[in-house]
Amino acid sequence: MELSEVVVAVDLGGTRMKCGLVARDSTVVHRETRPTPRAAGGQAVLDALVETVVELGQKAAADGYRVRGVGVVVPGIIDSARGTVRAENLAWLNVGVLDAIRNAVGPGPEVVLAHDVRAGGYAELRGGALVGTTNSLFLPLGTGIAAAMVVDGRLVSGDGFAGEIGHTRFVHTDAAEQCACGQFGCLETVASAAALARRYGDRAGRPVTDGAREVIELLAAGDADAAVVWDEALQALVDAIVLYTTLLAPTRIAIGGGLVGAGETLLRPLRDALAGRLTFQRRPEIVAAVLGEEAGCLGAALMAWDAVANLKEEEAV
Amino acid sequence: MELSEVVVAVDLGGTRMKCGLVARDSTVVHRETRPTPRAAGGQAVLDALVETVVELGQKAAADGYRVRGVGVVVPGIIDSARGTVRAENLAWLNVGVLDAIRNAVGPGPEVVLAHDVRAGGYAELRGGALVGTTNSLFLPLGTGIAAAMVVDGRLVSGDGFAGEIGHTRFVHTDAAEQCACGQFGCLETVASAAALARRYGDRAGRPVTDGAREVIELLAAGDADAAVVWDEALQALVDAIVLYTTLLAPTRIAIGGGLVGAGETLLRPLRDALAGRLTFQRRPEIVAAVLGEEAGCLGAALMAWDAVANLKEEEAV
Repeated sequence: MELSEVVVAVDLGGTRMKCGLVARDSTVVHRETRPTPRAAGGQAVLDALVETVVELGQKAAADGYRVRGVGVVVPGIIDSARGTVRAENLAWLNVGVLDAIRNAVGPGPEVVLAHDVRAGGYAELRGGALVGTTNSLFLPLGTGIAAAMVVDGRLVSGDGFAGEIGHTRFVHTDAAEQCACGQFGCLETVASAAALARRYGDRAGRPVTDGAREVIELLAAGDADAAVVWDEALQALVDAIVLYTTLLAPTRIAIGGGLVGAGETLLRPLRDALAGRLTFQRRPEIVAAVLGEEAGCLGAALMAWDAVANLKEEEAV
Repeated sequence: MELSEVVVAVDLGGTRMKCGLVARDSTVVHRETRPTPRAAGGQAVLDALVETVVELGQKAAADGYRVRGVGVVVPGIIDSARGTVRAENLAWLNVGVLDAIRNAVGPGPEVVLAHDVRAGGYAELRGGALVGTTNSLFLPLGTGIAAAMVVDGRLVSGDGFAGEIGHTRFVHTDAAEQCACGQFGCLETVASAAALARRYGDRAGRPVTDGAREVIELLAAGDADAAVVWDEALQALVDAIVLYTTLLAPTRIAIGGGLVGAGETLLRPLRDALAGRLTFQRRPEIVAAVLGEEAGCLGAALMAWDAVANLKEEEAV
């Protein structure tokens, strides 16, 4: 009864949990969004996550589906050996997320815990903008910036620590700001959607009310302050892409997150600058990611289904 | 007759070819060094390489060994799909090295063409400073700088293009020099053994006669110019290591090449600076590579033996 099997997928963000029941062919048979009770603290977030997983499982059962697996993706540093997560954004300091979910779910379904951006990149690789690549990059420019790196045909994990390109220094002037991570001049301090909104507000002397989207609109309307913060973001992004290309030789880079809402306003200058900067390196295509906000949840489902498939292989041996 | 089987291994450098006949257990049953006729042009270099491979095969046969494979490692960009090499240093512009060797060797032995630094890193991974790691870095600081990257248990190739950390910008002052690659401020322009010697000569107003080794001696003797160029090299190296660590989370970094002759004079400041710079990242050990100048040749042999083993697996299917 393949058709009646699903996995529970949850993409836990700082403000919302994007959830789904996803069939093996990636059909989303149910989707819902719940608030993340971040203000109530780290334990409340964990409790809400576990409750969500359990209730989605119950919903699946009530709708006549068999739950084969659970895929949960979260931000932060995931120690894949221990199943613990450190995510300042969720007030989590090495929280045992994997065990908490496993205990609540009980025996039976496979449980997978992964990084939200890597899961999003995996979804783009399997069914989005990176299909067919063996060396590529998914670079979402959202509240934060992290990378999902496809290297020699595989998604890189680095034991859960890899991909923190947002916390790499790309601002080398005296104006480099200290990042939340403690370092100075990180890409995230100038080129994330959050940074763009904050820096525009600081510079123009009035806060934006609709985040990076508003800055992009101001840019299109010819606002000089928007042009300055946008150019600073672009410059850091070009440096980051040149660096990644020199080190890991991607053939395609898919930009995602809020900033890609700017479309060709973002992508064309990146392509032009790259063409002028690269010398001996293989030049990557720069494209927009295609799965949008659903990427993390779809990736969580794909990873859970992979775990189910691996289990079957082991049983067959 | 396992014991009487060898592979021919050649590490083709800009000045010398380091060659060996290597048994399956990495015992080097014969080693020799030949000059690289670089001044005579790219075709002469290719001819000399092919002749060397053929003659080493003949020597093996004369000594009673069966040649199972040939491993040749070269600098530059290796297009692994086409088997062509681009190496300015050897006056090679997309030269069909793999076919040239295969044609000369004839049917029978497996022929592997790989990058010299990646081969060196593979040797360190299999039998040197990186044994037991799944995420690590081999960073030889020689005439040039390139990286062999071990990511999630595998040596990264990036279709032959990956690892060019020497051509990543780490000098951000107005004093950034243009690199031979065309870019500005590359790590290689300040932190390679060649750069150290050149920059000391420029600064002190007198050329060194014994390369980076002499600069390291001058540094130990308290020479002020040596201290300045050394510190600039260290600063760029620390930036490079912080960046690599943030992106790929190695647990160990093995420094090789001429500069590691400085020993703890190089390694201790790198460790100290790293400890002060990293915040959330996993901190890697910084160690000296152990295989020295033989790493490339041993890696070539290991890769050739891997190809022989893969062939056996295919035959068994």
